[in-house]
Amino acid sequence: MSKLKRNERIAAMVKILSDQPNRIFTLNFFTEKFNSAKSTISEDIVIVKQTMEKMELGKIETFSGAAGGVKFIPKTSKEQNKEILEMIAAKLSEGDRILPGGFLYMTDIIYSPHIIHRIGEVFASQFDYKNVDYVITVETKGIPLALMVAKAMNLPLVILRRDNKVTEGSTVSINYVSGSSGKIQRMSLSRRAIKPGSRVIIVDDFMKAGGTARGMMDMMKEFDAHVEGVAVLIATKEPDKKLISDYTSLLILEDVKETDQVVKIYPDPNLT
Amino acid sequence: MSKLKRNERIAAMVKILSDQPNRIFTLNFFTEKFNSAKSTISEDIVIVKQTMEKMELGKIETFSGAAGGVKFIPKTSKEQNKEILEMIAAKLSEGDRILPGGFLYMTDIIYSPHIIHRIGEVFASQFDYKNVDYVITVETKGIPLALMVAKAMNLPLVILRRDNKVTEGSTVSINYVSGSSGKIQRMSLSRRAIKPGSRVIIVDDFMKAGGTARGMMDMMKEFDAHVEGVAVLIATKEPDKKLISDYTSLLILEDVKETDQVVKIYPDPNLT
Repeated sequence: MSKLKRNERIAAMVKILSDQPNRIFTLNFFTEKFNSAKSTISEDIVIVKQTMEKMELGKIETFSGAAGGVKFIPKTSKEQNKEILEMIAAKLSEGDRILPGGFLYMTDIIYSPHIIHRIGEVFASQFDYKNVDYVITVETKGIPLALMVAKAMNLPLVILRRDNKVTEGSTVSINYVSGSSGKIQRMSLSRRAIKPGSRVIIVDDFMKAGGTARGMMDMMKEFDAHVEGVAVLIATKEPDKKLISDYTSLLILEDVKETDQVVKIYPDPNLT
Repeated sequence: MSKLKRNERIAAMVKILSDQPNRIFTLNFFTEKFNSAKSTISEDIVIVKQTMEKMELGKIETFSGAAGGVKFIPKTSKEQNKEILEMIAAKLSEGDRILPGGFLYMTDIIYSPHIIHRIGEVFASQFDYKNVDYVITVETKGIPLALMVAKAMNLPLVILRRDNKVTEGSTVSINYVSGSSGKIQRMSLSRRAIKPGSRVIIVDDFMKAGGTARGMMDMMKEFDAHVEGVAVLIATKEPDKKLISDYTSLLILEDVKETDQVVKIYPDPNLT
């Protein structure tokens, strides 16, 4: 291929880096792809880095030395987080979402690829996941969200199942108690899904009493995995005392009044 | 903000466009964001467009006139499709994936954000989805894949459930017969999930006899929705005659020999 101009190299570089957040690309990768000298590529990287920071589109990290390289890190600002979360809170407050029993219809939002792609970046901005090995969730509604978190963090996703599946090989199953209903439930996971001694982040869409998150933490013990963080999109304000003590929630659902059709939901003010 | 240089505008533009495939951004969006003249932005777009095509990173489409704008379209070449599909086929052929009963362990691959992000773009390259309204799947294993297809196509994702959920409001449920096991199964979907008269693409990870896909098509009839396409990552070669006649499969699984630990799987030679 003929040599690319700086503009062209930068366009291609941004596409390649941002498609695969947190993956390190060597300088050689780009010198070969663009048929350019290392010094030229290094200059390109500086421009990309400065632009991403100036425009608040993320961070570029470079590594010097023999194993030198560059990676894109999704990083949203406090203002950006507030903006996206308030947008979601406003959508969820539309009165026609209240279902019988005081439940909120929200699958259209938590299955929207664009919205949860941004939420994935918000989660990635809340955690230090440098040494984390997996993102964990349980079927079903949290899966799209957890996948986008895993994509932003460049980590494999592991999905706990509600029952055993023949397509998973030998599995570990546990029982756990749903904190809200008091019902005993079951979850299972393939033996080979997680390497022993791993570090994980647990992600789910919704937390009320915390029983499901507690169950996921118990499951991680079965795999000798260390839980580095628990993150949910929405946690209810009540009960204040949940079955897990340490978690991050992006939104707090204070109240759903079925009779008045009023929803009270807002971003957690403690978020960075 | 001070005016950005061309390099900087291009870096930011590529990030913004490729983060939201198939979303149209007006020229005004960029003139305001970059504090630049329309003619300048138009020149930037030409450079981005040419680079994406030259480097086979996707397509840029522009619309002139009052409602003028620009969007990024994920578009993989036949060679790129072959490369990613052969990589997946090679991974799935590793002998230690064969489970008792001749099943293949593949959740690590179909839950890998990076792999399925690319697969989403391969699917988007196989279909004309200009007039499609939703991507449809059924829980659980196909969800990550379907989400990435939905993201590439900029369409909302709809997930059919195996049972009724109180958090979905009023639902439609149907029974369907699993083509492989002959068992009667049930799936349900919230009444409000799909607008009547919509056009949909059905996505799943795996097809054997096609009973589940058939069930999803039957469900779509309940919503007066028109199925524009059925796409699976892997279809088995046998049975040759499946319960649906018209579908796209990226990979064909010809054989899993449990005794010899041999897997025969390859990209569909008819793919574009």
